[in-house]
Amino acid sequence: MISKAKIKFIKSLQIKKYRKQEQCFVVEGAKSVQELITSSYEPLMVIGMPAFLDGIRPLIANKEVELTEAGEAELAAMGSFQSNTTGLAVARMKPNTPVEVKQGEYALALDDLRDPGNVGTIIRIADWYGINKIIASAETADFYNPKVVTASMGSFTRVQFYYTELSAYLVGTTLPVFGAFLDGENIHQTTFGVEGIVVVGNESNGISADVGATVTRRITIPRFGRGESLNAAIATAIICDNLRR
Amino acid sequence: MISKAKIKFIKSLQIKKYRKQEQCFVVEGAKSVQELITSSYEPLMVIGMPAFLDGIRPLIANKEVELTEAGEAELAAMGSFQSNTTGLAVARMKPNTPVEVKQGEYALALDDLRDPGNVGTIIRIADWYGINKIIASAETADFYNPKVVTASMGSFTRVQFYYTELSAYLVGTTLPVFGAFLDGENIHQTTFGVEGIVVVGNESNGISADVGATVTRRITIPRFGRGESLNAAIATAIICDNLRR
Repeated sequence: MISKAKIKFIKSLQIKKYRKQEQCFVVEGAKSVQELITSSYEPLMVIGMPAFLDGIRPLIANKEVELTEAGEAELAAMGSFQSNTTGLAVARMKPNTPVEVKQGEYALALDDLRDPGNVGTIIRIADWYGINKIIASAETADFYNPKVVTASMGSFTRVQFYYTELSAYLVGTTLPVFGAFLDGENIHQTTFGVEGIVVVGNESNGISADVGATVTRRITIPRFGRGESLNAAIATAIICDNLRR
Repeated sequence: MISKAKIKFIKSLQIKKYRKQEQCFVVEGAKSVQELITSSYEPLMVIGMPAFLDGIRPLIANKEVELTEAGEAELAAMGSFQSNTTGLAVARMKPNTPVEVKQGEYALALDDLRDPGNVGTIIRIADWYGINKIIASAETADFYNPKVVTASMGSFTRVQFYYTELSAYLVGTTLPVFGAFLDGENIHQTTFGVEGIVVVGNESNGISADVGATVTRRITIPRFGRGESLNAAIATAIICDNLRR
């Protein structure tokens, strides 16, 4: 059985301050935990209902991972899910290592994306479109926020994330920097090429002035109806689909 | 000042049963209320802070709309927003009138989309792409759910919504019925034509067997990376962008 101290410890990892202090984060739900175990992340403990742990055991093989049984109510108390009938894992965070976008590669740059659900959804989109590098401003939602991890549907394991001062980073690249503006080139007519960094603006304010000044390719998503805007994750998906065709 | 009875009444409209009984729904936030007032919906009352009501008055002109002052705490207590510093409106629901998709038009068909946020986001996408008719199965989230209305960002005012038995409806159309399946035609190579109904499947189970049997054009969103799936609203946006290009 799981101890009260461990429940308290895992619950504390919902909060960024404690994640930073412990350098650990929580992954919830069967699919995400399975993806974590078979990824380059280091899982430290897996907590779950007996049937779930039975399914995890063959995956961990030689890794030193502590397995602990817990019931549904305990899992819900520890995590962010309203109900969890499988389990969760605690893994070690990776250091915030600089990510270099090479020639022939695409990357995303998140300019103060505040909503963790949006960030997680964008990670999932990036992974679908074979984009594995994401640069983010310091104000962007924490990659290890449980809502980010959950919304990414396991894709967080396949994406490198790097927090930095975004405009300084973008000034330093020789690759094209794409950003969506109302007066940009219609993406249905744009020749994207094979490489570049796509800036995703803040949910309310769009791309900031500093970051906007680094954009070398202004693009726009053509509108056919009367809607006034698109959600940041939706716009990102449409741009990624266009640049990969 | 607003009465306790009115606060209670408006709060009750968060629940589908009471919306159905009263045939009224709530619209929250400045932008959405403004769009409501200037739409074909009949607003019954607007409740808000004094500055907000001053901005609304010129818009309502000859309409018989009751204006009531309320403070921030009262607005939050009545509505679904954690904080509301502007106002909200109550409007009359429209009857569930059959929607006919004509030649030369596109429409969406929602097959048990359960998440109100997804439904609202899809309404916003449809409006952006000039698709103004949405047919939905009975199990789809209620169009008048406050989360649907809010996520649509005012686009709910420009979209006709019709709940019906979806497979029976689709059997009756002579237009192409598009549906995304893993073995479908790559949408980057598909000739969509000028008309059709695009089926959006349930978040967990995709397109149901009954509805799937009515699909005449199986399509697929090509994958370039390792992500296993896309969110229903994201997939809808990508399909809409492809069919409009």
